[in-house]
Amino acid sequence: MQKDELIKILNRYKSGEIPEKDILNYFENLPFEDISFAKIDHHREMRFGFPEVIFCQNKTPEQVAIISEKIIKQGSNLLATKASSKIFESVKKYIPDVEYNETAGTITYINNKIKKLPGKVLIVTAGTSDIPVASESLVTGEMLGLDITMINDIGVAGIHRLMEFRNEFISASVIIVIAGMEGALASVIAGLIQSPVIAVPTSIGYGASFNGISPLLGMLNSCVPGIAVMNIDNGFGAASLAFKILNSLDKLKTTD
Amino acid sequence: MQKDELIKILNRYKSGEIPEKDILNYFENLPFEDISFAKIDHHREMRFGFPEVIFCQNKTPEQVAIISEKIIKQGSNLLATKASSKIFESVKKYIPDVEYNETAGTITYINNKIKKLPGKVLIVTAGTSDIPVASESLVTGEMLGLDITMINDIGVAGIHRLMEFRNEFISASVIIVIAGMEGALASVIAGLIQSPVIAVPTSIGYGASFNGISPLLGMLNSCVPGIAVMNIDNGFGAASLAFKILNSLDKLKTTD
Amino acid sequence: MQKDELIKILNRYKSGEIPEKDILNYFENLPFEDISFAKIDHHREMRFGFPEVIFCQNKTPEQVAIISEKIIKQGSNLLATKASSKIFESVKKYIPDVEYNETAGTITYINNKIKKLPGKVLIVTAGTSDIPVASESLVTGEMLGLDITMINDIGVAGIHRLMEFRNEFISASVIIVIAGMEGALASVIAGLIQSPVIAVPTSIGYGASFNGISPLLGMLNSCVPGIAVMNIDNGFGAASLAFKILNSLDKLKTTD
Amino acid sequence: MQKDELIKILNRYKSGEIPEKDILNYFENLPFEDISFAKIDHHREMRFGFPEVIFCQNKTPEQVAIISEKIIKQGSNLLATKASSKIFESVKKYIPDVEYNETAGTITYINNKIKKLPGKVLIVTAGTSDIPVASESLVTGEMLGLDITMINDIGVAGIHRLMEFRNEFISASVIIVIAGMEGALASVIAGLIQSPVIAVPTSIGYGASFNGISPLLGMLNSCVPGIAVMNIDNGFGAASLAFKILNSLDKLKTTD
Amino acid sequence: MQKDELIKILNRYKSGEIPEKDILNYFENLPFEDISFAKIDHHREMRFGFPEVIFCQNKTPEQVAIISEKIIKQGSNLLATKASSKIFESVKKYIPDVEYNETAGTITYINNKIKKLPGKVLIVTAGTSDIPVASESLVTGEMLGLDITMINDIGVAGIHRLMEFRNEFISASVIIVIAGMEGALASVIAGLIQSPVIAVPTSIGYGASFNGISPLLGMLNSCVPGIAVMNIDNGFGAASLAFKILNSLDKLKTTD
Amino acid sequence: MQKDELIKILNRYKSGEIPEKDILNYFENLPFEDISFAKIDHHREMRFGFPEVIFCQNKTPEQVAIISEKIIKQGSNLLATKASSKIFESVKKYIPDVEYNETAGTITYINNKIKKLPGKVLIVTAGTSDIPVASESLVTGEMLGLDITMINDIGVAGIHRLMEFRNEFISASVIIVIAGMEGALASVIAGLIQSPVIAVPTSIGYGASFNGISPLLGMLNSCVPGIAVMNIDNGFGAASLAFKILNSLDKLKTTD
Amino acid sequence: MQKDELIKILNRYKSGEIPEKDILNYFENLPFEDISFAKIDHHREMRFGFPEVIFCQNKTPEQVAIISEKIIKQGSNLLATKASSKIFESVKKYIPDVEYNETAGTITYINNKIKKLPGKVLIVTAGTSDIPVASESLVTGEMLGLDITMINDIGVAGIHRLMEFRNEFISASVIIVIAGMEGALASVIAGLIQSPVIAVPTSIGYGASFNGISPLLGMLNSCVPGIAVMNIDNGFGAASLAFKILNSLDKLKTTD
Amino acid sequence: MQKDELIKILNRYKSGEIPEKDILNYFENLPFEDISFAKIDHHREMRFGFPEVIFCQNKTPEQVAIISEKIIKQGSNLLATKASSKIFESVKKYIPDVEYNETAGTITYINNKIKKLPGKVLIVTAGTSDIPVASESLVTGEMLGLDITMINDIGVAGIHRLMEFRNEFISASVIIVIAGMEGALASVIAGLIQSPVIAVPTSIGYGASFNGISPLLGMLNSCVPGIAVMNIDNGFGAASLAFKILNSLDKLKTTD
Repeated sequence: MQKDELIKILNRYKSGEIPEKDILNYFENLPFEDISFAKIDHHREMRFGFPEVIFCQNKTPEQVAIISEKIIKQGSNLLATKASSKIFESVKKYIPDVEYNETAGTITYINNKIKKLPGKVLIVTAGTSDIPVASESLVTGEMLGLDITMINDIGVAGIHRLMEFRNEFISASVIIVIAGMEGALASVIAGLIQSPVIAVPTSIGYGASFNGISPLLGMLNSCVPGIAVMNIDNGFGAASLAFKILNSLDKLKTTD
Repeated sequence: MQKDELIKILNRYKSGEIPEKDILNYFENLPFEDISFAKIDHHREMRFGFPEVIFCQNKTPEQVAIISEKIIKQGSNLLATKASSKIFESVKKYIPDVEYNETAGTITYINNKIKKLPGKVLIVTAGTSDIPVASESLVTGEMLGLDITMINDIGVAGIHRLMEFRNEFISASVIIVIAGMEGALASVIAGLIQSPVIAVPTSIGYGASFNGISPLLGMLNSCVPGIAVMNIDNGFGAASLAFKILNSLDKLKTTD
Repeated sequence: MQKDELIKILNRYKSGEIPEKDILNYFENLPFEDISFAKIDHHREMRFGFPEVIFCQNKTPEQVAIISEKIIKQGSNLLATKASSKIFESVKKYIPDVEYNETAGTITYINNKIKKLPGKVLIVTAGTSDIPVASESLVTGEMLGLDITMINDIGVAGIHRLMEFRNEFISASVIIVIAGMEGALASVIAGLIQSPVIAVPTSIGYGASFNGISPLLGMLNSCVPGIAVMNIDNGFGAASLAFKILNSLDKLKTTD
Repeated sequence: MQKDELIKILNRYKSGEIPEKDILNYFENLPFEDISFAKIDHHREMRFGFPEVIFCQNKTPEQVAIISEKIIKQGSNLLATKASSKIFESVKKYIPDVEYNETAGTITYINNKIKKLPGKVLIVTAGTSDIPVASESLVTGEMLGLDITMINDIGVAGIHRLMEFRNEFISASVIIVIAGMEGALASVIAGLIQSPVIAVPTSIGYGASFNGISPLLGMLNSCVPGIAVMNIDNGFGAASLAFKILNSLDKLKTTD
Repeated sequence: MQKDELIKILNRYKSGEIPEKDILNYFENLPFEDISFAKIDHHREMRFGFPEVIFCQNKTPEQVAIISEKIIKQGSNLLATKASSKIFESVKKYIPDVEYNETAGTITYINNKIKKLPGKVLIVTAGTSDIPVASESLVTGEMLGLDITMINDIGVAGIHRLMEFRNEFISASVIIVIAGMEGALASVIAGLIQSPVIAVPTSIGYGASFNGISPLLGMLNSCVPGIAVMNIDNGFGAASLAFKILNSLDKLKTTD
Repeated sequence: MQKDELIKILNRYKSGEIPEKDILNYFENLPFEDISFAKIDHHREMRFGFPEVIFCQNKTPEQVAIISEKIIKQGSNLLATKASSKIFESVKKYIPDVEYNETAGTITYINNKIKKLPGKVLIVTAGTSDIPVASESLVTGEMLGLDITMINDIGVAGIHRLMEFRNEFISASVIIVIAGMEGALASVIAGLIQSPVIAVPTSIGYGASFNGISPLLGMLNSCVPGIAVMNIDNGFGAASLAFKILNSLDKLKTTD
Repeated sequence: MQKDELIKILNRYKSGEIPEKDILNYFENLPFEDISFAKIDHHREMRFGFPEVIFCQNKTPEQVAIISEKIIKQGSNLLATKASSKIFESVKKYIPDVEYNETAGTITYINNKIKKLPGKVLIVTAGTSDIPVASESLVTGEMLGLDITMINDIGVAGIHRLMEFRNEFISASVIIVIAGMEGALASVIAGLIQSPVIAVPTSIGYGASFNGISPLLGMLNSCVPGIAVMNIDNGFGAASLAFKILNSLDKLKTTD
Repeated sequence: MQKDELIKILNRYKSGEIPEKDILNYFENLPFEDISFAKIDHHREMRFGFPEVIFCQNKTPEQVAIISEKIIKQGSNLLATKASSKIFESVKKYIPDVEYNETAGTITYINNKIKKLPGKVLIVTAGTSDIPVASESLVTGEMLGLDITMINDIGVAGIHRLMEFRNEFISASVIIVIAGMEGALASVIAGLIQSPVIAVPTSIGYGASFNGISPLLGMLNSCVPGIAVMNIDNGFGAASLAFKILNSLDKLKTTD
């Protein structure tokens, strides 16, 4: 729920359109709705600027479906991440027209028009195998109103391939770099541009990549200062941070 | 060296004030100056928006002094981090009026007026022991033109102390959270605000804090999405990212 | 078997009701019953105050069933933890009316009325995904006579949701906090109350949560002193400690 | 500051003995006192039942001295842990009659009579080398009003030595077990008694003890359920938990 | 093949019973037989005193079957460890009367009477779940001619259960202790006896047992000196060491 | 594509055989071909001397098939590693006569005659279980034109078996040692010869081998200087390095 | 104190030579002597066959001196390990004629003639840097009555050097192998002989040897079955195990 | 000692110049010279092509001096690595004109003219702080007859600086890349050239670089196949491998 909507409701109450009993009932629901196994935070949208997101891992298909229904009924947009096709089947029974992106593992449903944010966000992957994590970033970014695009398979093994995209790098306000193995792509790109770089290590690789520890450490120790590191495979978090950065522009303009 | 300065030089060449030989010589030095044990990147300022920074750890006092002198001679501002008092003594011999912040471990020298960036940056520490890392952030931020301030010793053990500062949190464009032990402060603050949070784990603590692994993992696994995690004790990196974010937004504001 | 029962048997022997041969035979069985692959400790109830518990992991369904039967025949209550539905099926064949809690992974059977302990125990989970571990605590607590309840999904990302339950926190004699990811909930709650907090890290999360290492380290390094940390996913242990704490009250009263 | 003291002040205000201005000023200081590098939590005593404790590690001697003075001026008792003799020297300059326990690394000063708690607390160490950590527990316990004693050097290598103390074990309300190496002492003692056991792994040992990881893991994985595990070398935390347990039981006894 | 057999063959050659060509051919096969994917070491029996053992993990059922056949054809006894039932099926096709112990995961076939060694070997397990590893030790010990027996489920949580077996412990020449979780059983038993103790950590447990790291570290750091530690789950190695120890008796007698 | 081929094309253009439009189009494709989820690097052959290799892990069968087809159409040879039989089925649909080596997990197709390199490369495995990784090395080596052979199952447990092959070791220009468990074979062989040794740790073993960490550390810490260590299970990398070494001979001759 | 001595005392009591009061007093001291910070186990000699050993690390010089004096007064032999020269100075004040071996870090004093055990024990080191740990084994072995010798600097890098000593290896009843780096020496020697091998990893090396983790893992994962692994740098433990083995065999020989 | 020298001695013996007794005595010394704490391998030069190297870490200054003297007396060249200035002082007393390179930590002495090998070896460092490790490589390479040079401070943060040296990269036969932090330089350079790359991770950095684990993992997981990885800080090993590669190619060239 957007802040605007809240102000509207308050005004309608002031004008007598909504009786006291109703607005009280409404605010009672505001902080969160208790459905015993989960507390849904319906005014998170107002506080954070984006809706309750369901992290599906370790939740039962049934639980995800019930939470999803509550969110959509409340009139919010829905984003569920790390969702298996089994979870999608369960949600679909409750909400027939939800959308599922299998590569990204996301379930989405749009109730309200998404407010567009200024600035370009670019996702860059080191290899074909990093695409699932990148897709989670892409879908999340779109749900949050980002102007977001993706370039795949630009590893540091071929610096010439990478250099071809230099203009794209420079024109982006935020770059999300998604890489497994040694994770060096984040350093190389961050060394080429002025904008903030968000680095997501992936669990791609084998042996001494230790399910993503290798690129995680590489990104944390980058010789380029100020790279924002995310948890392994956390494509969702990267897009969230990009959103928070670009969302700050409005505040900056006002306080100026 | 600022971009403006470069444009000035080019104009002076165009108008015949500087002969061709000199400008060629000048550009030859541009990419980097080779002093055998280090390559100084004099046009980094132009590319990244901030000067060559010397990371002092594992360099000899002599090496730091020589690099410092070259940077200052070139007309750039100087920032050296993780500098011991012994290194400061060495640099002082070459450049008598450099400044040293012992708590922060920084050596600074200002040649050119620093360009101010819009937006407020707030540094929050969990405990008194985190102040050295926070001070590194503070000095770095000041050198990069940030409007940056610091609040100390607000741990999650006393949520009421923390809540007293809620207004300060909300009015900041970027918050840098610096915490050791369990590192939970980043999550709690990020749960209260919309702006981006940069989290720096510190090596403060003992036993199972494992020199900062505990808060590092805590911050990477935060239940609040989109926290930008830095390397352990990397106060410098946090201020660099804050700079990149505000610099990127500043450009966006103009192009808007 | 309760201590009272033992005293009764001894008195019946003294009064001649039970012949010497029988009481000798009885005591022979006391220390433990040997069924080749397991030693059942029938007088543990007397020593510890609670019955033999079967930890099912790495035992065959057959083994669990045989041990269960022996325990129930001896007249004790039964609690089996980390039990799969396959193990439940096996036990059911021997003891048709055992109860199974699928979420908690527990098998229970009550032979003797459970003695109630004073004081309230509260279980708090950080997220919906922590419920299985919390349920193991809940069932264990009920089998041990605790007045125990559960509040779910109160993460530190929303301090306001958490604060709503402050009165519940304060009125509890012991709080069990169950959390994955960064595990910060234990610190925040322990910072609000005087009573002991028992913290259970869970293996919920992905990437750098490393199957529970992240919350485990977070809880061990809490800035709030005196948090009792359990093994990862050890809901059973947490309830056991709560029992031991509240069970000490009787001793305290007597020795007073 | 004890709760009783607060009630007294409030009553004196009610009776007109203290003017409104003064009580307001008094409460203003209540939440915490800000001395720039630290926030002292003067009403923690009221909330938690024990005074602000200074964790000296990573604080400068100067900082510890200033915080100590503030605490003592406020009329609270002082406990500083992990204090080097250098820190003690610094504090002594400000507060000449503080006491220093070199083995325990503690600095103490008693302003108010300490309220005694019911129940016996027993500290048991596995070896002579664990005594410093045990001493930290002992001093902390004394400052918190515990009836606390210490038995040293009872390792599992000599079960007969250990068994000699069985009566002492049984008569304790809480046992704190302090052990390095394999940390097995916690399991063996917890297997003999009904009361809660608090286990503190120490960094004693060499090679594969990995500075306390070995006993930490051993204690977390104990085959005896419900052992409360502390951070490595955290003698202070163990006594804090013992206090919270007995304090909680004390309240329960009254409300019973 | 036993040393005795070798001497017989040599004598038969000396007496002319075996022609030179045959004995040459025989010795050519001695060092090892090359079957492309494996080198079978047929005179290992002579050098080490026990036959080639097949470690089945990571070998295909087909490979195990072929190697087994070669060994048996050569007239040696066969022991295959970590064998799945699938591997057993494959071997059975080649050698119909091999024996399979499912709990131990061993395949055995006896061609030659096993030479008995003096001394008693006792296997002790901490819990029912450690029996598979203990069974591997038991079967290995029997194949090597040890007088070996097994006592199960004697954890340190019940020292009284353990003490019941003190006489068994003292009468053994070598004790193999097999334990997961904290692995403290090795220390407790080694503290009671003079004979060598061989400790095998098992991967039993969950969470912070980290698949056996916890008992492995516990055993390496035992406060009782001279415990022989094996790899995690290495029941085979423990019996091999017991064999080497008792096998040395003959040498000791001769050199006496 | 070989360098020779490139020179031919250039000459044909010079002579007018190929019009300007075509050669431009040709060079446009040179750097890489963009198929959205992957960038195929068609002139890698020229730069590195060997074709684009597809690392199949974490790619979908469909993706591997499409990339394979593109590579073969371009006229290059194909090598795909870590390929499951499922991936092979998918590729086969597009390119019916590709070859699959199940043990090695490789898919190959030869378009151009492979240029032979001088020198002998020997692969040595410590055990039968290391053969899959060794086979990946073997197939890779053959595709790169190496004169490469394999000797299996020569562990350090039987130094006499190993010594039998001393002549083979000495006559090789490069030796690839593939070993799991303690990985000592690399040290022993490197101690016998002058030529470079490439060591590949394998994830063979159990318990404290930690999926290859044990041999990886063993090889990195070898007491024989200059062993080239590869990632765990990286048979492909070992053959690649052998190729690079022997391929340098031409350069050496020219510059001589 | 030896068993013989105990029997003598008992006989003297029986014959009236020692009055009842004295023998009671004597037995009171038997289990252990309590000196507040340590419990000295005076009848350990009887139970284990060797005297109380003082592990000096983390004990103060004063503590070691007091314990040493008590042990010597009781008439036992003394062995203190990991003793710095500072500790030696302290002990010397109490017992002027103790001996100190600086390389081994041992303090010794012989009160009673040491009983010799049959069999030869051989210590083998991989490099010169392993000698301190080996010396601890040597001194310990001598104090325990072993016929023990040392061969130094036989690494696997030079198999020919190693083979020169094959006869020495074969004639030993127990071999202690002490090695850092990759720790392969244990496997190679164990592959050559039938007798038990005790392996001690040392913290010698740098980088990825991780203070002894590399050889520790190598030894635990040896391809030769039944190697007895000790803690890192635990030369004392190795000699203790050698003693237990030969002591056990000695008893067996007698009972045979 | 060179092979040539050996042949000469043999010829002089054949011609009667050297009597049988002397040559026997000579060969007795050949395998190694035993100086109790070390075995010096005088014919290593013949077997490996380079002289005995002394790894000084964990050796006493005295030990290094004695070994050095023996090596030089035998007529070999001397190389000692990881040598402190204290060790240098000790060696200087025995051999007054040895040379010491403080940055590299090497002691050298040249007895025989070093045989030059064909091909160029290039050392590249990522930062000024990597120079000590690089210097160890440089000195080692010079002692082994390599044509070896060094370029410093070319990190991936400035790809343009790196590209300036492309020609140097391409003209090298072997490149040694020395880098700490994320270690990405190895991948980037290996992606530009055909020749073998040897990568040395350094312990430079802080926090999550974990003393070199971060670059070590990065290099092992490089997306460029066939990078030869060395132990952390092992500059000596890198030069040794470069020598073995060029030595092997040199032989191949001749036999071609």
